[in-house]
Amino acid sequence: MKAHSNLSLLGFAAVALVFVATVARAQDPLPSWNEGLAKKAIVAFVERVTKTASPDFVPPAERIATFDNDGTLWAEQPIYFQFLFALDRVKALAPQHPEWNEKEPFASLLKGDVKGALAGGERAMLEIVMTTHAGMTTAEFEQIVKDWIATAKHPKTGRLYTEMVYQPMLELLAYLRANGFKTFIVSGGGIEFMRPWTEKVYGIPPEQVVGSSIKTKYEMQGGKPVLVRLPELNFIDDKTGKPVGINSHIGRRPIAAFGNSDGDQQMLEWTQASGGARLMMLVHHDDAEREWAYGAESKIGTLSDALMAEAKKQGWVVISMKNDWKRIFPFDK
Amino acid sequence: MKAHSNLSLLGFAAVALVFVATVARAQDPLPSWNEGLAKKAIVAFVERVTKTASPDFVPPAERIATFDNDGTLWAEQPIYFQFLFALDRVKALAPQHPEWNEKEPFASLLKGDVKGALAGGERAMLEIVMTTHAGMTTAEFEQIVKDWIATAKHPKTGRLYTEMVYQPMLELLAYLRANGFKTFIVSGGGIEFMRPWTEKVYGIPPEQVVGSSIKTKYEMQGGKPVLVRLPELNFIDDKTGKPVGINSHIGRRPIAAFGNSDGDQQMLEWTQASGGARLMMLVHHDDAEREWAYGAESKIGTLSDALMAEAKKQGWVVISMKNDWKRIFPFDK
Repeated sequence: MKAHSNLSLLGFAAVALVFVATVARAQDPLPSWNEGLAKKAIVAFVERVTKTASPDFVPPAERIATFDNDGTLWAEQPIYFQFLFALDRVKALAPQHPEWNEKEPFASLLKGDVKGALAGGERAMLEIVMTTHAGMTTAEFEQIVKDWIATAKHPKTGRLYTEMVYQPMLELLAYLRANGFKTFIVSGGGIEFMRPWTEKVYGIPPEQVVGSSIKTKYEMQGGKPVLVRLPELNFIDDKTGKPVGINSHIGRRPIAAFGNSDGDQQMLEWTQASGGARLMMLVHHDDAEREWAYGAESKIGTLSDALMAEAKKQGWVVISMKNDWKRIFPFDK
Repeated sequence: MKAHSNLSLLGFAAVALVFVATVARAQDPLPSWNEGLAKKAIVAFVERVTKTASPDFVPPAERIATFDNDGTLWAEQPIYFQFLFALDRVKALAPQHPEWNEKEPFASLLKGDVKGALAGGERAMLEIVMTTHAGMTTAEFEQIVKDWIATAKHPKTGRLYTEMVYQPMLELLAYLRANGFKTFIVSGGGIEFMRPWTEKVYGIPPEQVVGSSIKTKYEMQGGKPVLVRLPELNFIDDKTGKPVGINSHIGRRPIAAFGNSDGDQQMLEWTQASGGARLMMLVHHDDAEREWAYGAESKIGTLSDALMAEAKKQGWVVISMKNDWKRIFPFDK
């Protein structure tokens, strides 16, 4: 009997230990973040603004967090994924446009010469975007995006683009929401390019997505109302446009903002200057092995030395993908 | 002892009866609505889209309801309240603008001649709006609105404007939210004129307010970032603009939409045409005694015969303020 009791006790202890370990793991809301300054800053900030007794307490309704998308929530190399979408659309539409074989920037694009196509600068870029993003209804465009995002593969990893999202940021989004935050995307990317998939992938519903846009027009087609996408820019949600977009869509100032490039500086300034406890973070792509390493010299996702210096001066936290992230993508071991 | 017991029993029964009556009242989510077709349509619709077993079930995330503001959630006579705000601002700013005494539309306005001021048509109107709504930061404008809305009184009722909201619509907003709906304002009114008070008055947070807007510009003032309101129209959220604004801000189609005038027709069309169980309603101002009676002939909140005919044809429910509403304003007995 004694032996049996001891065995039972050992068994109980073992179960208890497993239980404690499980609870401890379950209690870490950010398991893909290494212990370090970045993780500490996040947890400390959330505790400061959510504990009722804290002098920095923020009511739930005002807990607004804004996230850039390209390079902050998902990858952006070798070029913004939306541009790869546009290239695929040019190829898909080419049979209906035999004139493109002679007309730039399409002729170069169709020969696979992206650099040649972009020699036309901003005007060439705009022409590619407008040709592929306008001229259909919003419902038709949504379906085109859904079909593409469900099947197109990244040229380097062979993965779906929606698999190339950052696991630590998914955990951060969930952690903030579990603490009463409303999470928004504020991206230079096209608002209607993101909305068809952000709810499923990030848990961010369409009404919490802010982005660049072209104009739309309400009209009747066969007795049914539609919104037609016009080849006319409406809004560029980048740099100084980000605070404008935040004000227009959200109408409150964020208390936390996350970006990775020069396009995000004004969003971080705007967040910080509202006063009170604020969290501003920049993702630094410094992991050539597991992702990409780029910064000041890159045309995609430029993180200039000036912004790095500003981050240091302002106390914005720079996240090192290499050191702060245990895992980059959900498919990483 | 027996008598005492009986008394206790009677006491208990009385308490129980009060309790039952209270629960019955508490269970009617729309106590200011008379029993009738409008109330029936609302309750039947909510049950259709929220009961899991219903073939018309709509997941909570897609339960979007949009409300016009002027004439739908609050009154709009003798003229849109935002215009009365602009008039008060002209008076407040006049001492800094001696030139207005000679300059239309301000000269007429300052003499109390609104009709004369508006003789200049749309251009005069635009000048009044731009002069009073632009040229300051968004934070400054918010404060101006807050100060005005907290003190200004309606010329006829002597009430605060935020008291002149419709009690039945407040109940409807709460009822929809209790059933998992997200409620939005989609108004021709200025987005930044509404946001400072809609959360407190309607329970609708700033990020769920869609409205007309002027452009803003991000800049540094004394080392602090601000958004300056520019005298340049950005977006008119009326008529065909309403579906455009809904698409831009919400990115989903409403399943219920509430308006009161020709400016709301396209919002109702857009809601209905998305298919499935949908609820479209128009508030008809037919109660000269308790509010105002106006419609086709009114310049403010025009409800044309054509829209009335369309409502009938499409099965949109027309709410008679006179017959469907037990109480109009919260201050009514």
